[in-house]
Amino acid sequence: MPVTQTDIALANRLADAAGAAIRPRFRAEHGLEAKEDQSPVTLADREAEEAMRKLIIAERPMDGIIGEEFGVREGTSARQWVLDPIDGTRAFISGRATFGTLIALIEDGWPLLGIIDQPIIGERWLGVMGRPTLFNGKPATTRRCRELNQAILGTTSPALFTDDQLHAFEHLDAEVMSTVLGGDCYAYGCVASGWMDVVVEAGLKLHDFAALVPVVEGAGGRMCDWQGDPLHAGSNGEVIAAGDPARVEEILEALACRGGH
Amino acid sequence: MPVTQTDIALANRLADAAGAAIRPRFRAEHGLEAKEDQSPVTLADREAEEAMRKLIIAERPMDGIIGEEFGVREGTSARQWVLDPIDGTRAFISGRATFGTLIALIEDGWPLLGIIDQPIIGERWLGVMGRPTLFNGKPATTRRCRELNQAILGTTSPALFTDDQLHAFEHLDAEVMSTVLGGDCYAYGCVASGWMDVVVEAGLKLHDFAALVPVVEGAGGRMCDWQGDPLHAGSNGEVIAAGDPARVEEILEALACRGGH
Repeated sequence: MPVTQTDIALANRLADAAGAAIRPRFRAEHGLEAKEDQSPVTLADREAEEAMRKLIIAERPMDGIIGEEFGVREGTSARQWVLDPIDGTRAFISGRATFGTLIALIEDGWPLLGIIDQPIIGERWLGVMGRPTLFNGKPATTRRCRELNQAILGTTSPALFTDDQLHAFEHLDAEVMSTVLGGDCYAYGCVASGWMDVVVEAGLKLHDFAALVPVVEGAGGRMCDWQGDPLHAGSNGEVIAAGDPARVEEILEALACRGGH
Repeated sequence: MPVTQTDIALANRLADAAGAAIRPRFRAEHGLEAKEDQSPVTLADREAEEAMRKLIIAERPMDGIIGEEFGVREGTSARQWVLDPIDGTRAFISGRATFGTLIALIEDGWPLLGIIDQPIIGERWLGVMGRPTLFNGKPATTRRCRELNQAILGTTSPALFTDDQLHAFEHLDAEVMSTVLGGDCYAYGCVASGWMDVVVEAGLKLHDFAALVPVVEGAGGRMCDWQGDPLHAGSNGEVIAAGDPARVEEILEALACRGGH
């Protein structure tokens, strides 16, 4: 079933609701002797997901929900809403507005719609398969990258790779112009808007990557796993986002060098 | 000579002038086939420093200038203005508003006044030795950190360390709660505001660290090199910022473990 305007309106309202829950908790840790389960980030995470689940259950009782905080709610349609209220916990807790709320609508495991929302500085990417990606309501497009040695590559942290993934990543790192660390989902928005060229990560869960696919692909980029296969609910969490699809083969080649060979 | 209100007003005007030069260049690379020396970041860097130098030469002809882009202008007073128009080039070129303009006033090599300015989202830390640090005009204070294992540690990139520095950093990394990468000067502002606890870096030039010292110390934190000595024009570029001065000894101990011993 194709994505409708009503679906898009609901997704935007989910992001609005999450942002309203998150904003008062950002930079609120100061001076608190918070318990682990009562930290501002935990509270923001839970309250944002609760707000989104409430809206979905009220308006789409047939759809399933997969949330980072509260897990799976089975539905009766082929559709599921995949929610990550705060992607980039480390950025959030260190006062940096580069975390994001991720909202995806998937059908039979395939991403149809995605939102990356940064509620503090008010930046939102909305992607729908087959439509142009919007950044704060205006079309976003990736940029061309004629040579890999001119590319800006991003990854959140090399510490998130296994040894052989790190080895592969270092191959790619050696071929690009510049590598920038940190960023989480925000980096994929930057690819969609043509400010960065490539993001490579691993260990991502469905709620980490489902929303990114329509955003990057609707902007003219390509997302796939480290074998070049499209991302869906069964993917292994190795993720590539390339602003220029023409560079994917070289990226895959560089990443194929694992395990010290 | 103590810092006057006129010095502070001039420093703020320097930051305003730099921001005005930088803002139109941010996220402007899209679609450009820019030459290396004509890239938006290079242009923004140069134009911002030129704007600041012009103001200083007009209003403080006796003071020296040390600029990241245009080098040293000798003065006849004991004072020098130390300028880094864009600290965090990688953040700037990848569309992330976590770079900053750094402005310091030093006397006989010692930092007296510092500004960390983020011109895109409009955030400014102003520190003056002996006065409370201001964040957007309101007092900023570091937070207490009772145990190192509860600390949030930041560093821009492990790739900026030498092998023995990296070894030392990994010792510290293993003792803290969480390590967040990226950030450049912005991370020191986050320490001053009590959102992060520690930043450890190396290889910094005078223009990278001079402005940070009054900001962090005026907020109640402490800055020193990896031997615990205060930072001045002759420092070797190994830098520690600790929000809670009570944790400095443990940080120094962890960093003393170099070279695989």
